[in-house]
Amino acid sequence: MPAALILIADGTEEMEFTITYDVLVRGGVKTTSAFVPDLSSPSVSVSPPAAKGSRGINIIPDSYLDFGECGPDKYDLLVIPGGAKGAETMSKSPTVQELVRRYIQEKKFVGMICAGSLVAQSAKLEKQPITSHPSVKAQLENEFDYSEKPVVVSDYLITSRGPGTTFPFALTLVELLCGKERREEIRGPMVFPANTPF
Amino acid sequence: MPAALILIADGTEEMEFTITYDVLVRGGVKTTSAFVPDLSSPSVSVSPPAAKGSRGINIIPDSYLDFGECGPDKYDLLVIPGGAKGAETMSKSPTVQELVRRYIQEKKFVGMICAGSLVAQSAKLEKQPITSHPSVKAQLENEFDYSEKPVVVSDYLITSRGPGTTFPFALTLVELLCGKERREEIRGPMVFPANTPF
Repeated sequence: MPAALILIADGTEEMEFTITYDVLVRGGVKTTSAFVPDLSSPSVSVSPPAAKGSRGINIIPDSYLDFGECGPDKYDLLVIPGGAKGAETMSKSPTVQELVRRYIQEKKFVGMICAGSLVAQSAKLEKQPITSHPSVKAQLENEFDYSEKPVVVSDYLITSRGPGTTFPFALTLVELLCGKERREEIRGPMVFPANTPF
Repeated sequence: MPAALILIADGTEEMEFTITYDVLVRGGVKTTSAFVPDLSSPSVSVSPPAAKGSRGINIIPDSYLDFGECGPDKYDLLVIPGGAKGAETMSKSPTVQELVRRYIQEKKFVGMICAGSLVAQSAKLEKQPITSHPSVKAQLENEFDYSEKPVVVSDYLITSRGPGTTFPFALTLVELLCGKERREEIRGPMVFPANTPF
């Protein structure tokens, strides 16, 4: 059974977090969330025990970010969701930066969505195809081959754009970890409208 | 500023809860969640303080279901999300049943999605157009005019089908509470793929 770690912080976009987590579980991926503290301003953090999402939903993480427990020896996929403040916390975290580099080095998958793609820059990943929320395009387009496709797969780095592309992002992650058949199996019961383009 | 109450229980489908809550907040709706206890089996409930979603995400509700505090005098919209176990808890709750009847009587909106539509039956709403998750169609099609459209608006009752239809469901609720212009304003920044049919 493949295993995924999905990061969460104060300010994480809760739709991106929840859709990705839920769809991975539906796909048969053992999924765990890990809280990333905002070390720059601990006094304004409401956590622990909960992460306050960008629109105010309080989610209890399954675990806390720990370098030794969160590496590519333990998980097949690391996911960085968006939400401006949450993604900023993650992109500035040296632990997150080093984990992202190690996952890629060890040929494990890394998913980044929305402003979460900023971690590709802070972790100094090599120039490659990438996408992100349009609001952070300017920070990424010089250092990467910027695309406006809903989901961009570049070897082990999968990036996407925002809440509206999280379903195809998460379904792509299920396909990469569990195969195309599993992706199709779990798509039906979610009842997408006819002509949904993913 | 319109106000919405969205119910949550152990077993609530966390994508349906989170997408609806988040999109309502983006639309400018003051949104509050209220926990519905499973009175039939308190010993297996993990709550309070958190509701464990259908795929394991733990969400802290903003408040607890209270008949006096949750009525149509306080809110313009009541939302019942799906998730088989959460929807069962809500559909069996006499408090939820009576609240749904009062919202409709007072011409306030009620939204039900997925298995949440079962509350239309348990609250004994009159025969009208409705949709739901396909898995509970058989329990509804004799008592209602069953539809397979992604979102069905029947006066003050708005119903929808599953996680894959939650974005159009939530956008419809924003349009009803805040107008079509607001719906369009908040749609762009969520970055739906081209040709998304809502």
